[in-house]
Amino acid sequence: MSQFVFPVRVYLEDTDAHGMVYNASFFRYLERARTEWLRAHGVDHTFLREQERVVLVLVGTEIKFTRPARLDDMLYITAELSQLKGARFIFEQSVRRESPDGELLCKGTAEVACMDSEQLKARRVPAALLSVLSE
Amino acid sequence: MSQFVFPVRVYLEDTDAHGMVYNASFFRYLERARTEWLRAHGVDHTFLREQERVVLVLVGTEIKFTRPARLDDMLYITAELSQLKGARFIFEQSVRRESPDGELLCKGTAEVACMDSEQLKARRVPAALLSVLSE
Amino acid sequence: MSQFVFPVRVYLEDTDAHGMVYNASFFRYLERARTEWLRAHGVDHTFLREQERVVLVLVGTEIKFTRPARLDDMLYITAELSQLKGARFIFEQSVRRESPDGELLCKGTAEVACMDSEQLKARRVPAALLSVLSE
Amino acid sequence: MSQFVFPVRVYLEDTDAHGMVYNASFFRYLERARTEWLRAHGVDHTFLREQERVVLVLVGTEIKFTRPARLDDMLYITAELSQLKGARFIFEQSVRRESPDGELLCKGTAEVACMDSEQLKARRVPAALLSVLSE
Repeated sequence: MSQFVFPVRVYLEDTDAHGMVYNASFFRYLERARTEWLRAHGVDHTFLREQERVVLVLVGTEIKFTRPARLDDMLYITAELSQLKGARFIFEQSVRRESPDGELLCKGTAEVACMDSEQLKARRVPAALLSVLSE
Repeated sequence: MSQFVFPVRVYLEDTDAHGMVYNASFFRYLERARTEWLRAHGVDHTFLREQERVVLVLVGTEIKFTRPARLDDMLYITAELSQLKGARFIFEQSVRRESPDGELLCKGTAEVACMDSEQLKARRVPAALLSVLSE
Repeated sequence: MSQFVFPVRVYLEDTDAHGMVYNASFFRYLERARTEWLRAHGVDHTFLREQERVVLVLVGTEIKFTRPARLDDMLYITAELSQLKGARFIFEQSVRRESPDGELLCKGTAEVACMDSEQLKARRVPAALLSVLSE
Repeated sequence: MSQFVFPVRVYLEDTDAHGMVYNASFFRYLERARTEWLRAHGVDHTFLREQERVVLVLVGTEIKFTRPARLDDMLYITAELSQLKGARFIFEQSVRRESPDGELLCKGTAEVACMDSEQLKARRVPAALLSVLSE
């Protein structure tokens, strides 16, 4: 159950007319970190879809935003798998500024389900995936 | 404390390679509905910023996604103000397919803070805004 | 060869920290207008993909941005099919503010190719589609 | 007049239900590369806005998309300044897959204007900026 930190730069595309990072951009950052966590375990979405016929889909999330992020900020996004059973992954995630130990901007939980790629119904995590994730 | 329903069409921009609406797109939809709820009360972001020197910022959210949305779907997004005190609005929100009473795709809560537009610090909701919102 | 106008509201999601609509948001608007033009002809992407096994893909574009759009603006996006032969559609498009005859913000051309949905190779526009588009 | 290459990973957020990278995502990538080109010259948007009171805004673009990009692809985005006079920058840009010399996916030109950050009117490139860019 490793912690994982992924750096993300804030671009114009991520900001809004209030002069801060738009809320939905944080959900894109959090998903990038989960995807890179997966890749760090040797697995990507394309492999899961084509070889295992599954997709990983966000089915619930709870987030607190404590401080705004700004254009040009360097952010550090964490993804820590706190639970994995049946078809569900629970990730603890956070966003910090400037360094992995920097100011906390956002913190929360993401619940991800393993689903059949055709029918989009929940399906137990394939053994091959379970095995690499627990290494 | 009125309920409000706003229709949203799903475009290619909202979908992802899993063939469904990408999770962050739902947060854009939910924010559109809150913005249109505000507009239905005679207020918009530009007015708030320029006349009242405040911005409304998402500071927390809790969402469950129960079914995927698809390209070309017509969605109905609700925004119901359940609480308003100090600097905080709590909205109950949901997304349904095809009609305002259609299949439930997503449901949750959004906590929005009123902030000073320059310093991005929490600030009591201005009286002028409180007054139109309680009409 | 009909002209078509589609209204779009500017939301926070579309703007950037410069206080204007971010450039890529215009490309989303232009694509929405082309999609609604198609729908006005009785066809949508889901039908094309599932029944005709084709997708319509942007393969080239040339755009001039003449004035910025702002948060809360109401925009009117046109899509006029100027040419359709083989696998290619050429659309003339524009964005105006406040009314379909309002101030011009952006103007250009979009070249869209009809492609096989599996192999993403150019394919002649299906007869069924040609027929509804020329009605 | 240096060439500059910036790597970009394709995430779910960038793709669409056709199974490829959505067209507007390429414009986000191209802008990231121009922003990183600027940063490589020691300048960022925040500095330009706060110190020089200017913003850099896309005012025209011409792009050809020759091949689709896919989820999980590693892309290499170039930004080469081909012209800089008055208030205008012209960039030649391209997107290649897997390596800076890989398969060409997209190629074109971006015209960027230097504008006053308050009034959004064209303004000569500040001397301080011209000087670092010509180093």
